[in-house]
Amino acid sequence: MDELFEDVDGILIYNQGEPVVDLNFFYFTKLLESGLFEGSYLYMDKETKVILTSQLEETSAKKSGFDVRTFSRISEMDNILKELIGNRKRIGISFGSVSVKEYEHLKKLFSGAEFIDVDERISKMRMVKDQEEIKILKEACKIASDVAEEITDHIKEGIREYELAAELTHLLLKNGAQDNAFTPIIAFGENSAEPHYFSGSRKLKKGDIVLMDFGAKYKKYNSDMTRTYVFGRASEKVKRMYEVVLEAQKLGIDSVKRGTRGSDVDKKARDYIDSTEFKGLFIHSLGHGIGLAVHDHPALSPNMNLVLENGMVITVEPGVYIRGFGGIRIEDDVLVEGKGEVLTTAPKDLIEL
Amino acid sequence: MDELFEDVDGILIYNQGEPVVDLNFFYFTKLLESGLFEGSYLYMDKETKVILTSQLEETSAKKSGFDVRTFSRISEMDNILKELIGNRKRIGISFGSVSVKEYEHLKKLFSGAEFIDVDERISKMRMVKDQEEIKILKEACKIASDVAEEITDHIKEGIREYELAAELTHLLLKNGAQDNAFTPIIAFGENSAEPHYFSGSRKLKKGDIVLMDFGAKYKKYNSDMTRTYVFGRASEKVKRMYEVVLEAQKLGIDSVKRGTRGSDVDKKARDYIDSTEFKGLFIHSLGHGIGLAVHDHPALSPNMNLVLENGMVITVEPGVYIRGFGGIRIEDDVLVEGKGEVLTTAPKDLIEL
Repeated sequence: MDELFEDVDGILIYNQGEPVVDLNFFYFTKLLESGLFEGSYLYMDKETKVILTSQLEETSAKKSGFDVRTFSRISEMDNILKELIGNRKRIGISFGSVSVKEYEHLKKLFSGAEFIDVDERISKMRMVKDQEEIKILKEACKIASDVAEEITDHIKEGIREYELAAELTHLLLKNGAQDNAFTPIIAFGENSAEPHYFSGSRKLKKGDIVLMDFGAKYKKYNSDMTRTYVFGRASEKVKRMYEVVLEAQKLGIDSVKRGTRGSDVDKKARDYIDSTEFKGLFIHSLGHGIGLAVHDHPALSPNMNLVLENGMVITVEPGVYIRGFGGIRIEDDVLVEGKGEVLTTAPKDLIEL
Repeated sequence: MDELFEDVDGILIYNQGEPVVDLNFFYFTKLLESGLFEGSYLYMDKETKVILTSQLEETSAKKSGFDVRTFSRISEMDNILKELIGNRKRIGISFGSVSVKEYEHLKKLFSGAEFIDVDERISKMRMVKDQEEIKILKEACKIASDVAEEITDHIKEGIREYELAAELTHLLLKNGAQDNAFTPIIAFGENSAEPHYFSGSRKLKKGDIVLMDFGAKYKKYNSDMTRTYVFGRASEKVKRMYEVVLEAQKLGIDSVKRGTRGSDVDKKARDYIDSTEFKGLFIHSLGHGIGLAVHDHPALSPNMNLVLENGMVITVEPGVYIRGFGGIRIEDDVLVEGKGEVLTTAPKDLIEL
């Protein structure tokens, strides 16, 4: 924690609230089970940790064990902020999540102060998960992985994509997820060629690809996994696509190691796909960190020089997409612990239902 | 649209992506059914509308009918941006959703340009819904309202909060919601006193308050409603709390009128609660706008001078919270159309299950 305050007198984190959330607020307060904390501040320095929030969140805020100051009118907030920060001169804020508007507000309020970007140092901390975070993420991954297996009972002729999304979400929450980690992607047949499709009213028919990309939000941490099944018999083309994607994923996972660059892991999987007839059809990065954000640091992408460290948790998710035909993606969450430990353990052989 | 460009040569919207989303991107592109568009730009001026996104989102982006430019490497993005904006000098951006980091990036990229905050003008547009948006919101409200009635079948002795959240979410998605509008709040008994509680493992027992605050996300627009039921017979105290909250809500809804200030609507409900034995226990604002954001403009709060206009859609949600005992909240979504039209029509008499 001492490095955090190296060149600043204190750090001020502002959570504006959906759709502009500063997850650092939740990272430091560990308020993972309730509360939205819109328009709330966390002030931290070497001695104190104070949450400044509305009366509405007081009960939730107190669970942090931090000091809690509440306002009943927004107009009181600035005065409390001034009191907390006093005449400290070097204030750390997150340039990546504080809006220009809030920055202008803070500059006016503390006109004598210097604002220092603490984004990178916090991001570095957040990339490497501690034991408690790994425990939470393992549970989020277990929930998703169990659901990937349980959902097969619901994959029946004529079901619509959004109906399958309902069954999948039901299973996630019954298994203990707080919520979907993100709007689930349930894509049948040709719709699976659109990586960020959601789900529509298309009905399932024989021979369809069934692509399901989903995750469990558990104590505000997120898992993220994809399984692609086939309803009925897979065509030779689909079988070959699946085989290539699965092999690319295996190569990717095998090259996840402490000390390896993210770009090298991406390259391993990408080069393999590009050596096949599906060259150029893997149109996104190989993976990304997960945690309080679904798409967190570090990325596994062609231009990511960052080196993997123990405690990082990343997705490995190659895909091949053919417009008008369909796509195959296989995604697991992997903990770096020397080598890669796969946390989403549902089977990956081609499943024909 | 001409007012939008009054004093700017063009507007640049940047969607960083979860957890820092610029909903204006979705407002203008009307890309409501698929796509995340992380790290994507929308550039608009009087002549052109161009989406700049990754290859990954190309299929989704094209549904907008706008020009689509894609990059396969992030390094290409700045060059395309420069090409699009050329030597335009007055660039509108949203100070409320652009991060300091992105602002610094843009200032460097367009060092000769002036950046003008277009937050307020877009916010004003977004507050007043057009016919298409009202149609979408009515459907989002209908889904939630139907579920408020259907969920009663699942409220049984011994069910845990998170299990009821699973059933409720299942119903929302089966009825056509894309996702939960937000992590549903399912609070039994004393947990209902915490306004932003999520749900835990507490089991339902006779006499418990059952507070359910939830919404449907439909085509990226959100409804937001609360019903509070009682499992078994309500005590005299709960009956009285319910009666007061219901009356406050009625007074609030009745005072929703075109031309009325938000603060006056809040005051109507608040003054009534403060005239009872529950004085001071209504610890949040009376309501807020809904739309692409769950908590959108305008707020109905003590310091909101904004005047209601036709086409605004707001929540009216008084509550009374007694720590250690429980809370009652009743929330509906109301369209301003001369007077207020309630869009979430599920019954509000005290329901004892």
